[in-house]
Amino acid sequence: MRLIYLNGNYVTENDAKVSVFDRGLLFSDAVYEVISVIGGCLIDMERHEQRLMRSLGELSINADEGWSAICLGLVSRNALDEGLVYLQISRGAVPERDYRWPSADIKSTVFAFTQERALIDNPMAERGMRIVTRPDMRWGRCDIKTTQLLYASLMKMEARDAGADDAWMTRDAMVTEGTSQNAHIITKDGVLISHQLDHRVLPGVTRIELFERAGAQGLSIQERAFSVAEAYDAAEAFVSSSTLLIMPVVSIDGHMIGDGKPGGITEQLRRSYISEVQRTAAS
Amino acid sequence: MRLIYLNGNYVTENDAKVSVFDRGLLFSDAVYEVISVIGGCLIDMERHEQRLMRSLGELSINADEGWSAICLGLVSRNALDEGLVYLQISRGAVPERDYRWPSADIKSTVFAFTQERALIDNPMAERGMRIVTRPDMRWGRCDIKTTQLLYASLMKMEARDAGADDAWMTRDAMVTEGTSQNAHIITKDGVLISHQLDHRVLPGVTRIELFERAGAQGLSIQERAFSVAEAYDAAEAFVSSSTLLIMPVVSIDGHMIGDGKPGGITEQLRRSYISEVQRTAAS
Repeated sequence: MRLIYLNGNYVTENDAKVSVFDRGLLFSDAVYEVISVIGGCLIDMERHEQRLMRSLGELSINADEGWSAICLGLVSRNALDEGLVYLQISRGAVPERDYRWPSADIKSTVFAFTQERALIDNPMAERGMRIVTRPDMRWGRCDIKTTQLLYASLMKMEARDAGADDAWMTRDAMVTEGTSQNAHIITKDGVLISHQLDHRVLPGVTRIELFERAGAQGLSIQERAFSVAEAYDAAEAFVSSSTLLIMPVVSIDGHMIGDGKPGGITEQLRRSYISEVQRTAAS
Repeated sequence: MRLIYLNGNYVTENDAKVSVFDRGLLFSDAVYEVISVIGGCLIDMERHEQRLMRSLGELSINADEGWSAICLGLVSRNALDEGLVYLQISRGAVPERDYRWPSADIKSTVFAFTQERALIDNPMAERGMRIVTRPDMRWGRCDIKTTQLLYASLMKMEARDAGADDAWMTRDAMVTEGTSQNAHIITKDGVLISHQLDHRVLPGVTRIELFERAGAQGLSIQERAFSVAEAYDAAEAFVSSSTLLIMPVVSIDGHMIGDGKPGGITEQLRRSYISEVQRTAAS
């Protein structure tokens, strides 16, 4: 029986309920993090906490509750070996619906749950992802990790309907990011290109670690938007996220990337990242 | 004790809770309507139902439950004379979080609650609203009435901090709409200008009735975007929404509109709309 964390208690799935007046439900006034778990360890938890505190700060949501302890308690109670912890914080429930929140203290709603998932032995790493591009119609502050995920959800469904695994978002023919991953290419000159950090993309936790691995492999890195045409023409393409880790892309809008198999540099980056994670988990 | 409608039952506030796995909470995968109540009657319910069914259809949410009966049942049980009914439908709860929803039938989550409010005797109608403009950073499908309201919520807070009553959203110096109302101006030539219906604005229920009233008063109507400069220079400005009805605007970004008092044509439109609503409610 999976236990869910809810406002200080560990409860069963059936008891894990929040008020219909929760502002997360009425106004999407909520932020979240997904933390990968490998060997029972939270991966990059410190960086997730930093990003969470930034998201909360951008929205002036007043909450700081020892996120690491909450997640660790949940992993331990559910004996989770590999998978993820989902952690969500909303501004809280107010019994009279109003766009404006009260200036007085409002108690945030905090919940978290675990999901089992094979992150390392993911068959997609062998075959690579097929991507389609779609216009990026999300709001203008994608750097804040809010629960406004409806467009990403719709685009993942469109990608599936188009026979693909996921979608990359584009603005003015430039790729911003994946629906729930940062997007990257490696040019034929061996340069790793990745959208700069601004309001259009999420500052990925795995992206930081990726850049460190890439630097160690001697890759030069350009942080700038790349066009859809550049992506079609890339030697390799891949995504990074907490649950996909580093994952090769083998086609974009039906254009085969490289020879249509996961790229060699990408595979090396994935192996290197996994080794590092396993080393940290074991220590 | 206010009763809340939740998935077929009328429950107390404390019992009105939804699963943390509800997609409305995790993905903002939910739509809603706010229906005004005057003299115990639902105003323009048929049009709200039509718009709701359109929103549901755009998101492929499968739900059709006799919305009118749900709202009427709630108004009656709570003996509501004047105020509103809030009705929300999400795609439903799935115990494993996934952006992609299951293709099999998923049971939608439906809840509704009432709020008492003086809609007709609103002191703001006497003094008029002060508006500030802000960039429209919402997503690209504002024609669907989803719960992705965080930006609107943030902008209402910014407006309050700036000493104003609300904000109008702008894209490329053109006004789209208010944070939760359609925005309109009347030029010095007596033309009513209102943003055309497209993906950038909500197709307001009150907007339809407004146009009928305006036509009856002999106003000519242009459905097109107007610039912030045009708004500053307008003879009159106002908003329409289900709960504000027709509400005069007296300043925009500190620029006084007309003589800084509610405009005569706007006041006539408001009176005319209220008369119509009261006549319908009484019949």
